[in-house]
Amino acid sequence: MNYNELHKNIKKKQSFLCIGLDSDIDKIPKHLLNYDDAVFEFNKSIIDATHDLCISYKPNIAFYECRGSKGWDSLAKTVKYIKNNYPEQFVIADAKRGDIGNTSKMYAKAFFENMNFDAITVAPYMGSDSVVPFYSYDNKWVVMLALTSNKGAYDFQFIENKQNETLHKSVLKKSQEWGTKNNTMYVVGATKTQSLSEIRKIVPEHFLLVPGIGAQGGSLSEVVKYGINKQCGLIVNSSRGIIFADNSENFATIARQKAMEIQREMKSLLGLRPI
Amino acid sequence: MNYNELHKNIKKKQSFLCIGLDSDIDKIPKHLLNYDDAVFEFNKSIIDATHDLCISYKPNIAFYECRGSKGWDSLAKTVKYIKNNYPEQFVIADAKRGDIGNTSKMYAKAFFENMNFDAITVAPYMGSDSVVPFYSYDNKWVVMLALTSNKGAYDFQFIENKQNETLHKSVLKKSQEWGTKNNTMYVVGATKTQSLSEIRKIVPEHFLLVPGIGAQGGSLSEVVKYGINKQCGLIVNSSRGIIFADNSENFATIARQKAMEIQREMKSLLGLRPI
Repeated sequence: MNYNELHKNIKKKQSFLCIGLDSDIDKIPKHLLNYDDAVFEFNKSIIDATHDLCISYKPNIAFYECRGSKGWDSLAKTVKYIKNNYPEQFVIADAKRGDIGNTSKMYAKAFFENMNFDAITVAPYMGSDSVVPFYSYDNKWVVMLALTSNKGAYDFQFIENKQNETLHKSVLKKSQEWGTKNNTMYVVGATKTQSLSEIRKIVPEHFLLVPGIGAQGGSLSEVVKYGINKQCGLIVNSSRGIIFADNSENFATIARQKAMEIQREMKSLLGLRPI
Repeated sequence: MNYNELHKNIKKKQSFLCIGLDSDIDKIPKHLLNYDDAVFEFNKSIIDATHDLCISYKPNIAFYECRGSKGWDSLAKTVKYIKNNYPEQFVIADAKRGDIGNTSKMYAKAFFENMNFDAITVAPYMGSDSVVPFYSYDNKWVVMLALTSNKGAYDFQFIENKQNETLHKSVLKKSQEWGTKNNTMYVVGATKTQSLSEIRKIVPEHFLLVPGIGAQGGSLSEVVKYGINKQCGLIVNSSRGIIFADNSENFATIARQKAMEIQREMKSLLGLRPI
């Protein structure tokens, strides 16, 4: 999926919501445990109930890996299900990968070739050759960590170099030598909105993937205020606040309600912006 | 396995060699492809042929993930095989993981609980709460990226802050608030020996996991010269130079020869050091 197609979907659905499939088998409704692949059944129900309200799904790979090869099967089935039934969805592997060239190449193969993800989150610490292998696929995206939503972001991401440039800004600048707005997004936490305006000066056109609303406490209206660009340029993620809003047999209906609340706010915010 | 046990094994075997199981199915000897699980058979043969010459094995997770759930099974079987047959081996998941707390917790579960790895490589970019969940297991280790062996290491790891401290040194210092020499090692590339002496000043007692000899061009004697400490404090990895030295039916014998060459050099270097 390319840059314009993504914006077309945002306009059509009046939504820039990404739903995070952090599908912890210990948190899904108990009645699903009767299925052979409970996690896939859970994902399928969530996806069927929410697909018209969001433009993206983001499975969090840790929650699949912690179940070994069974988890890996649930993951592959989930991506396939989305692609077969809702091909307009942008599917992000939240994997935070990054290693020396020959190894990153294998991670790219795992997520882009074998599983047909559209994008993967990548950690920048190891630099150019740990990221570049992910660019060798057409219409696939690198989503690079810039300023993350967690408390630990303050340990290194705000370190200033001698030119008063913080590490996350150095990442934003340097990585533009490797990719473009057509194949690169940046992770910027919703809990760090005070930095969003400055980040927008460095990457005015790129998509930002914004986690941290809901359970982590970030505000959607603040994200839009400081982060939106002319076309939108935002994909805002919510995971636990939607998928685990209820754990009765009614979970998918409640998840839909929660997703709809966010989508309505997004629609309203998209209408208000000054263009 | 604890700090002293690791050093005891090094002394006993006169080796601080870690063999990297970057077991790419496209590079293993063709005759193994007749087996149901060719990668496991390959690993088993390499392990049986080399276990007395090394103190550690390090499966590189990308090479398993790129084969989906089958790869994950090969990985789990490999760890189990090592633990059942050569329990003195220190088994490192080269995974470069790191995410917000609830997610890192799941990665820790995947590698420490479900698969019984002794250690996992962790990327520091997201800071404290992305690392700390890995410390909640006794006798398990975080192997944190500090100064990596690849070219891209120069993109961010050498950025200096206003106190002239490079990012990799900030990582070494800050991370000592989270772990100790008894549960933390650092990755320092063998291609960066000019930085090793300075790194040793910051972490005089910690183990360093050193990749980059062999295919990547680092020198073992230089690593020892600048990196060894009183007890040893080094685990030096070789992957491709050992496991893919030959791809005939004789591959395991040749792998043993290559491992023995390194072990003999290690023995000699351990004998020469000034204590």
